[in-house]
Amino acid sequence: MAPVKKGILERLNAGEVVIGDGGFVFALEKRGYVKAGPWTPEATVQYPDAVRQLQREFLRARSNVMQTFTFYASDDKLENRGNNLKLTGAQINEAACDLAREVANEGDALVAGGVSQTPSYLSCKSETEVRAIFKKQLDVFVRKNVDFLIAEYFEHVEEAEWAVQVLKTSGKPVAASLCIGPKGDMHGVSPGECAVRLVKAGAQIVGVNCHFDPMTCVETVKLMKEGVEKAGLKAHYMVQPLAFHTPDCNRQGFIDLPEFPFGLEPRILTRWDMHKYAREAYNAGIRFIGGCCGFEAYHIRAIAEELAPERGFLPSASEKHGSWGAGLEMHTKPWVRARARRDYWENLKPASGRPQCPSMSVPDSWGVTKGHADLMQQKEATSKEELEQLFDKSKTH
Amino acid sequence: MAPVKKGILERLNAGEVVIGDGGFVFALEKRGYVKAGPWTPEATVQYPDAVRQLQREFLRARSNVMQTFTFYASDDKLENRGNNLKLTGAQINEAACDLAREVANEGDALVAGGVSQTPSYLSCKSETEVRAIFKKQLDVFVRKNVDFLIAEYFEHVEEAEWAVQVLKTSGKPVAASLCIGPKGDMHGVSPGECAVRLVKAGAQIVGVNCHFDPMTCVETVKLMKEGVEKAGLKAHYMVQPLAFHTPDCNRQGFIDLPEFPFGLEPRILTRWDMHKYAREAYNAGIRFIGGCCGFEAYHIRAIAEELAPERGFLPSASEKHGSWGAGLEMHTKPWVRARARRDYWENLKPASGRPQCPSMSVPDSWGVTKGHADLMQQKEATSKEELEQLFDKSKTH
Amino acid sequence: MAPVKKGILERLNAGEVVIGDGGFVFALEKRGYVKAGPWTPEATVQYPDAVRQLQREFLRARSNVMQTFTFYASDDKLENRGNNLKLTGAQINEAACDLAREVANEGDALVAGGVSQTPSYLSCKSETEVRAIFKKQLDVFVRKNVDFLIAEYFEHVEEAEWAVQVLKTSGKPVAASLCIGPKGDMHGVSPGECAVRLVKAGAQIVGVNCHFDPMTCVETVKLMKEGVEKAGLKAHYMVQPLAFHTPDCNRQGFIDLPEFPFGLEPRILTRWDMHKYAREAYNAGIRFIGGCCGFEAYHIRAIAEELAPERGFLPSASEKHGSWGAGLEMHTKPWVRARARRDYWENLKPASGRPQCPSMSVPDSWGVTKGHADLMQQKEATSKEELEQLFDKSKTH
Amino acid sequence: MAPVKKGILERLNAGEVVIGDGGFVFALEKRGYVKAGPWTPEATVQYPDAVRQLQREFLRARSNVMQTFTFYASDDKLENRGNNLKLTGAQINEAACDLAREVANEGDALVAGGVSQTPSYLSCKSETEVRAIFKKQLDVFVRKNVDFLIAEYFEHVEEAEWAVQVLKTSGKPVAASLCIGPKGDMHGVSPGECAVRLVKAGAQIVGVNCHFDPMTCVETVKLMKEGVEKAGLKAHYMVQPLAFHTPDCNRQGFIDLPEFPFGLEPRILTRWDMHKYAREAYNAGIRFIGGCCGFEAYHIRAIAEELAPERGFLPSASEKHGSWGAGLEMHTKPWVRARARRDYWENLKPASGRPQCPSMSVPDSWGVTKGHADLMQQKEATSKEELEQLFDKSKTH
Repeated sequence: MAPVKKGILERLNAGEVVIGDGGFVFALEKRGYVKAGPWTPEATVQYPDAVRQLQREFLRARSNVMQTFTFYASDDKLENRGNNLKLTGAQINEAACDLAREVANEGDALVAGGVSQTPSYLSCKSETEVRAIFKKQLDVFVRKNVDFLIAEYFEHVEEAEWAVQVLKTSGKPVAASLCIGPKGDMHGVSPGECAVRLVKAGAQIVGVNCHFDPMTCVETVKLMKEGVEKAGLKAHYMVQPLAFHTPDCNRQGFIDLPEFPFGLEPRILTRWDMHKYAREAYNAGIRFIGGCCGFEAYHIRAIAEELAPERGFLPSASEKHGSWGAGLEMHTKPWVRARARRDYWENLKPASGRPQCPSMSVPDSWGVTKGHADLMQQKEATSKEELEQLFDKSKTH
Repeated sequence: MAPVKKGILERLNAGEVVIGDGGFVFALEKRGYVKAGPWTPEATVQYPDAVRQLQREFLRARSNVMQTFTFYASDDKLENRGNNLKLTGAQINEAACDLAREVANEGDALVAGGVSQTPSYLSCKSETEVRAIFKKQLDVFVRKNVDFLIAEYFEHVEEAEWAVQVLKTSGKPVAASLCIGPKGDMHGVSPGECAVRLVKAGAQIVGVNCHFDPMTCVETVKLMKEGVEKAGLKAHYMVQPLAFHTPDCNRQGFIDLPEFPFGLEPRILTRWDMHKYAREAYNAGIRFIGGCCGFEAYHIRAIAEELAPERGFLPSASEKHGSWGAGLEMHTKPWVRARARRDYWENLKPASGRPQCPSMSVPDSWGVTKGHADLMQQKEATSKEELEQLFDKSKTH
Repeated sequence: MAPVKKGILERLNAGEVVIGDGGFVFALEKRGYVKAGPWTPEATVQYPDAVRQLQREFLRARSNVMQTFTFYASDDKLENRGNNLKLTGAQINEAACDLAREVANEGDALVAGGVSQTPSYLSCKSETEVRAIFKKQLDVFVRKNVDFLIAEYFEHVEEAEWAVQVLKTSGKPVAASLCIGPKGDMHGVSPGECAVRLVKAGAQIVGVNCHFDPMTCVETVKLMKEGVEKAGLKAHYMVQPLAFHTPDCNRQGFIDLPEFPFGLEPRILTRWDMHKYAREAYNAGIRFIGGCCGFEAYHIRAIAEELAPERGFLPSASEKHGSWGAGLEMHTKPWVRARARRDYWENLKPASGRPQCPSMSVPDSWGVTKGHADLMQQKEATSKEELEQLFDKSKTH
Repeated sequence: MAPVKKGILERLNAGEVVIGDGGFVFALEKRGYVKAGPWTPEATVQYPDAVRQLQREFLRARSNVMQTFTFYASDDKLENRGNNLKLTGAQINEAACDLAREVANEGDALVAGGVSQTPSYLSCKSETEVRAIFKKQLDVFVRKNVDFLIAEYFEHVEEAEWAVQVLKTSGKPVAASLCIGPKGDMHGVSPGECAVRLVKAGAQIVGVNCHFDPMTCVETVKLMKEGVEKAGLKAHYMVQPLAFHTPDCNRQGFIDLPEFPFGLEPRILTRWDMHKYAREAYNAGIRFIGGCCGFEAYHIRAIAEELAPERGFLPSASEKHGSWGAGLEMHTKPWVRARARRDYWENLKPASGRPQCPSMSVPDSWGVTKGHADLMQQKEATSKEELEQLFDKSKTH
């Protein structure tokens, strides 16, 4: 039997650094087990070895949280997304819990059950219906006895509040994480105000994930923290950003970039970018620090290496690394051995090797052409009918 | 029992496309199981699950060749590279063969045993000693009955000839692949001349791997083909390039780029770049088409998707893809659904998201500063003593 | 005798477009007649042919305003700037007026006498002393009977107010133009508030010049306009931006960019960029549209060509142009002739030809290094003593 | 009367550096006096003040050669290029000679009469007809007694040989300058072979001008020098490159870049680039060092400042400069004063300020699309009929 581990709140209350895991859908898409678009969560049943292996890589990089791979695994999502295995939502969510628990037991990690935004909300279903969707996933998490819960990847704070309130009924600790940037949610609610509402709804940990690059996400969480403190409330803070540089994003985040999701390679952060991110997040008072789309094990390892002084230990995966490139001391070529030092990598400005490509994109919604302007309008659709109309229009492009 | 498969030469003689696998050391380094610098091949013994999983991803992308993960696993290499597990070379090489065979048996793939350049050659050991090193690895490959052999990643054609001659003694088909570009090997032998010498040494398949980006590698193999044909000889051709853009490389390849090996992210090829590469290689008459450092499963899948008309089938991994982004038709956002089409991805010029970074690097050896000029000299070291002297000098930087 | 021309306010009140001239100091520096740093205004006496020729080029591009070349020609400025010709300020200012009048008489242009910010203000001289400096230049402008006055290139609205008040005593129309961006003046006063204060001080025309690229300047003037309208006041608006792209500037403008002033070439706007600027400025309700540093005659011509429909005529210089590249129809090479069309030039994204350079700079004041951080502090010097101290410190770099 | 000056060959024989002037057509186009496409040389008659002023700027930067502004002023060129002033070729050429002589007399400069490639050659007129064209211009140069002659801007060495032979009949020194790069002329003749043929035709000075950036041009002249020396011949060498970076050019030079001629701004060389060019050209043994399209007076001044130690004096225009930014010592802002030093400017990598633009272009002739491929074919047109056919085809794009 696994020893009893400290819970998420005990760790955070004690001022410990909790390192999250990386992103599942992008990593598994590249490995061939998840389909971009529907982001098929049935991989937990269909390809458990592949999911388990990825989870183990994060554990080895010293993540303290194994999130269940239940992104987009709500019943209303599964219905329309080509789930031709005829699996029930419960089956997929249960398999995800079992995998997370199995790997968590192999090290010092907790299992977090996750829910995310629903098509039901976007298509204006009733509050009751949306809450019922969350309740269904929660039932699995309770049955499988996850350690805590995360409501993540919400573009609208209103829906996130509902999710938090549902999750709170379990009595387990609840974290809430929006996929917003400094400009706030899709209804224009500022990060500070969002955070206050989530704390009032019952979240003990608040923050952001996905949609923007690490520095932008840290900046957003800072705004959340200011809001919470100004309101005289208390919370812990979390951040799980993209591993892609997104200086050219608007409110919609990286989904609006023309490179999403199949041309983002040049934007991938190096491990050295991650060192800066980890330090910045730590300095901002954030203690739950992880990653989302684009993060692979070596990115998480870099966070763990940067924060090793604070945590008191290096990750297991550093056995195959050596901080700041120290492993290169054993390289064949002398001029590569000369790179085995911190200031070399810290100051490197990596070239893109793509001299015919720009360094920033024009997001679709900047509306430089008529076609783009039309598409931009589509993004503000707030009902199912509107969305469908817009989709029909987009076919004509 | 696995059915009897067609051998490598039968396939190539029949004009079939043979798709190679991707790179092991870079992929496993990111996952936390291999150390950059010594590129620790003992992972086959230490972390067999991780190695097997990667190999399976390539198989699922429809590779026809499972290379044994024996890069840098010659005895002379292992001695000086922190192999603190006290494993023998034979143990590491045997484990690599077993893993490759296990996965190959799960699909239509052959096992290829691989040897690569040795420290013995670089430090001017005798021809006899160098040949003995290859022989030791070959003994394992024969014992484990691999399907064919590859002598790959040679910077000097002379050493590759020796390797080919040793491998030929087994009676198995032999491929020979240099890590050179259009300027030829480190002694200045042209690609055409290199190919002729390799064919004369007994290689049935010749080509290049690693060190340069796909288009540069295809160009190099074209030069090889011209040389072979001009000499009135015959051969099959192979290419297994980097998955990194390297327009700024000189004769030394990507090792000379300041970003090697920990800042190459912005250079990673997209899947759409791979479509162009696969087509270009095919049009050049190359039929053994694979990848090296930087290649992940989705890159191999892209090759398989591009050449699906020629092969007559899609890879299994396309179940989770859909050619040219077709899977995006099920994306939530209408403007992303509008990207589910070939001309969108084919014409995209992906931005780097790094506006403060250049698009091309100045390789170390361009010698823009005194320090760099010094280092450049080091690269032409041709004896062990010289290398050590140079290394000592480099310490002073 | 020259015919009586419509005054600046009559033109603007009638809704006419008034096109300003381009920048003198950068253009004459490149031609060899002005020294960067002290920006030696004594060129009006020393090299009148060169100054006159430049002014004529602007007239030929159809500028309606010939500004006297009196930038940095206040007595306190001249004292310390290596004016080794021993010319008085009055001599330099008078020569500038004569040149401007001579060229203005050759076409439909007015003469504008200009004052700009003083070292006296920056070194905390008394208000009385600063006003006296402006008065001295004004005396020349009155004696030479310029058509109107511009107080331009002020970083602090307070000093600009004083200048406007002094200029108003002449009874001539007064324009006021700050060198600020959307973040406001160096004391943190917002553009809207700055504009209100300038209008209240008596300026009939308000706007910005220099320090930022055209689109940023137009955006700043929009903020000014909003401020003025919200305050229930009325004014005309002017904009005279840089001809350099400055997306990476902070509050200090282009002076803070590492490329200032001798490495700005890659940032120079094309004529097609100017078309977009002219249209944007016009659409924003700005009617006095000109240029500052970096503008050459062909940039002004592009503004005049874009606004030809509104003005009713093309500039004389278009005799040697042809809108949107039409002149290329007579080029020798057929593929260049194919470029003689609007959509070609309108959509061109010009390459920099500098693959080893970034696309955005890190301004000095971003403080990425200790040295930079020190320098940043210097920028907020608010007294002469402080400035001198800082200068001493900077010597140690 | 002007004192007797040393001739061009006396200077070069004595090992002196001779600095050429900059480009006329691009500079005057921007000032509004020349039309891109036909590059209207009638400016010498129509706008003599503008031409004279530009020439004086080059003299002040210490050019030793005032070239007559007779580019594209052969009779066959003038016929078809909208010369609506009804000026004869002789009138235009004479005016050009008078202006060059007037300015040359103001300093230590010689007058060089120039001829360039003709439409007659391109449209396959007879050798006799082509020679007659050159003879007509030569008659003017002899009448006006220019100091020496330059046959420049030839894409085909054959036509240049004819020009040299015609010019030689005057008894004056003759220079010959092709607009080719390292790949040779449009018929594929290598630079070395071109140079040999030109020397044999009678040219005492050979080199290249226009079409490529400075470093590429120096490289080409090096190849010429090698050819001449290998052939046992002797010559002086000249180079007059573009002031634009062109790393992405093919054999056709900058005309093939999509930015030609109205979007080249980001490629303009800084004065510091010119220092490097001047030193490189000098080190290559070239002694006649000047510029072509894009060069302005400050570029020529930079050459003169770099080579001041060799020449023994600074240019007059340095009165308003100060080597390596020394003039900035008098700048108001302390952090700009800190830039008044050589290593700052020498190492600066200037940003483009255009993050949505690439750093290299795809030349038309790279044929990435069907349309481009068609156009590429047009470039190899070798007769008038073919050209016209191609032009008709290009209309359909």
